[in-house]
Amino acid sequence: MLDLTISRRSLFGAAAAFGAAGALRLPDAAFAKAPPVGTQAPFFYRFKLGDLEATVISDGPLSPGPLAKIYADAPKEELEKLLAAHFASPDAAFEQNAIVVNTGDRLVLIDTGVGTAKPFGPNSGRMLQNMAAAGIDPKTIDAVILTHAHPDHCWGCLAADDAPNYPNAQVYMAEADYNFWTDEGKLNNPQIKGMVAGTRKALTPLRERMSFVKDGADVVPGIKALHTPGHTVGHTSYVVSSGNQSLLVGGDVVHHPAVSMARPKYKFGFDTDPDQGVATRVKTLDMASSERMPMLAYHFPWPGIGHVSKEGDGFRYHPAPMRVVSE
Amino acid sequence: MLDLTISRRSLFGAAAAFGAAGALRLPDAAFAKAPPVGTQAPFFYRFKLGDLEATVISDGPLSPGPLAKIYADAPKEELEKLLAAHFASPDAAFEQNAIVVNTGDRLVLIDTGVGTAKPFGPNSGRMLQNMAAAGIDPKTIDAVILTHAHPDHCWGCLAADDAPNYPNAQVYMAEADYNFWTDEGKLNNPQIKGMVAGTRKALTPLRERMSFVKDGADVVPGIKALHTPGHTVGHTSYVVSSGNQSLLVGGDVVHHPAVSMARPKYKFGFDTDPDQGVATRVKTLDMASSERMPMLAYHFPWPGIGHVSKEGDGFRYHPAPMRVVSE
Repeated sequence: MLDLTISRRSLFGAAAAFGAAGALRLPDAAFAKAPPVGTQAPFFYRFKLGDLEATVISDGPLSPGPLAKIYADAPKEELEKLLAAHFASPDAAFEQNAIVVNTGDRLVLIDTGVGTAKPFGPNSGRMLQNMAAAGIDPKTIDAVILTHAHPDHCWGCLAADDAPNYPNAQVYMAEADYNFWTDEGKLNNPQIKGMVAGTRKALTPLRERMSFVKDGADVVPGIKALHTPGHTVGHTSYVVSSGNQSLLVGGDVVHHPAVSMARPKYKFGFDTDPDQGVATRVKTLDMASSERMPMLAYHFPWPGIGHVSKEGDGFRYHPAPMRVVSE
Repeated sequence: MLDLTISRRSLFGAAAAFGAAGALRLPDAAFAKAPPVGTQAPFFYRFKLGDLEATVISDGPLSPGPLAKIYADAPKEELEKLLAAHFASPDAAFEQNAIVVNTGDRLVLIDTGVGTAKPFGPNSGRMLQNMAAAGIDPKTIDAVILTHAHPDHCWGCLAADDAPNYPNAQVYMAEADYNFWTDEGKLNNPQIKGMVAGTRKALTPLRERMSFVKDGADVVPGIKALHTPGHTVGHTSYVVSSGNQSLLVGGDVVHHPAVSMARPKYKFGFDTDPDQGVATRVKTLDMASSERMPMLAYHFPWPGIGHVSKEGDGFRYHPAPMRVVSE
C-alpha cells in the first residue's frame, strides 16, 4: 500500500533543496534544528586603570535567600515596592566579584571567593577556573588582600585538600578581623561558630605569611587601605590608584544594587554591627559620589564596577559600560 | 675588588627563600612580576527566555564621534550636564548587540553587525569570532531577521569575499527598508550614497531568499514584528516570546543609555525622520515600561538587556543583572 504520510524530515529536505536552488524558501519550514548550546563565556573582565591592568574574576554567585529576611528590619512593603521599581528579584543573588591587579611589580588578588565550600548554593567556587580562563596562574599571585574574613571573601585561600591556592602570596588583612574571626572562644557562639571554624581553617595556616594593614597606609604601592568597619570589626576597603585614576574596592560596604544604594540606612543582616555598617555605608558612598570615584562592589551584578551619585535620601548606582574589545 | 651592590634579583631570591621557610615576607619586595595578560573573554552572553535559548553576541563597538554632533539639536550645555550626571563619555561608544534565538526548531539571528567594513572605528567586525566562541556555526543559522538596513545591522550578511556569512538562512526584513536602502536612484544622494552602495552589495544578492515582514505578524513562530519607523522608513522591532516571558528586540529605537532614556525627545542624527524617530521612541518605551517588558538595546552597553521605567519627563534604564553561571 502506498504511504501517503509526508514526514517532517522530507519536508525539510525538500525545502532545503528548494533553498539551495536560490528560490524563495518556505517560511514555515525549519532547516537546521541546531540544539541548544548551553555553554557560557568565562567570567573575567579585563580593563586598564591608569597604567595598571586589572581583571575582575567571578567566583560565581551566592544565593543566601529572600531579601526580606536579610533586611529583616526594613518595612516589608517598602522593600517590596523598591525591588519591584528596580525590576529586582525578591531573592538575593549576590555575585562574588574579586579583582586581580597587576601593579607592575606585584600581582595582587583582592578577596578570594568562598572556595569549594557551598554555604550559599551550588554556583560558587569558580574562581580558579575563571582565573585560568583569564590567563592568570595562581602561583604568580604575589599578594592576597582581604577586605574581611567572611567565608565568601577568604575561604578561597585554601583548596579542597587544604593546600594554599596562592602558594606564593603574602596575605594582607586587618588585624581586628583576623583576631575576631579566628578566635577560638567564638567556637561556642551558635550564630557564628560555623564561620569561625571555617575561617580558622582557612587563615590560621597563613598566619606566618600575613601582614596586617593600617588605615590610610599603602598595602603595596598603589593600593591604600581604608578602614570601613561595621560589616565586620576590621572590614577594610582599598583604593587602587594609577596616574589620575582610582578605583574604590568596597568589599561589603554595599550588597544589593537597589537596596544598598536607594536605602543605605536599611540594616544588613550579615553585619556584625549593623548600625556602624549603615554609618560606614553612607560615609563611603558620600565619598565615592563627591569624588566621582568608581567602585567595585563585590556583590553587585557582574562585573560590579560603577559610579555613585546622590539621589533622594540615598544614592544611585551607575554601572560602568564594559569595554567590549578583545585585545 | 668585592662587589657590594645587591641586585634586585638577589633580594627577590632571598625574600622568596625566606618565604618558603614560612617566615614573614618582606612587605616591599616583589615576587613573581607577572606580565600583563591583555586578553579579554569572548563577548557572548547566553540566557533562557521561557523555553528558548538566547545568546547575545557582540560585533564589537562603534565609535561614531562626539555625542554633541550626533545630537546636534540638543541644548549643548544640557547635554553635557546629562552626560556628566550619568558618568558617560562625551564620545559615543555604540555597542552592536546582536542576538541569536534558538526557538526550538529554528536558529534565528537578529541583526548581523557591520561585518568587515570599518566605517566607525577599528573594533567592529567581531561577530563570527564571538559566534564561534559561543559554539554557534553560521551555517546552522536558519533565519537572519533585520531590524533595518543600516550598515551596522546588515552589512555583516556578507563576508569580505562577498560570500554569504549565513549561507542557509532565509532573510527577513521590512520591504520599505529594502526598497529605500537598495534604491539605485539614491546612489546620487551625497549624504547616503555610501550606505546605499554598501547595502545594495550586502542585500541584493539575498533578494531571492528574502521574505518581507508584516507589522504585528509572526516572522517565525515566537518572534513577532513591530513596525517602529523613524530611524529608517521600515525600522522594525521584534518581540521574542516563550511561555509568559517576552523580550523586545528594539534595534535602533534607542541609542544611548542616558540620552535616549532621559531625553527621548532629543533628535538622533542618524534617523531618516528624526521627528518620527522621537514619536516611535516615546511610544515604544511607554509600552516597554507599562508592560514591564525587558528590552535588548542594540547599541547600549554590553550586553544591552534591561528594563525601562518612567522617570521625570523621560525614562530610566535598568540593566538586567547578568546570570553569572557557566552551565
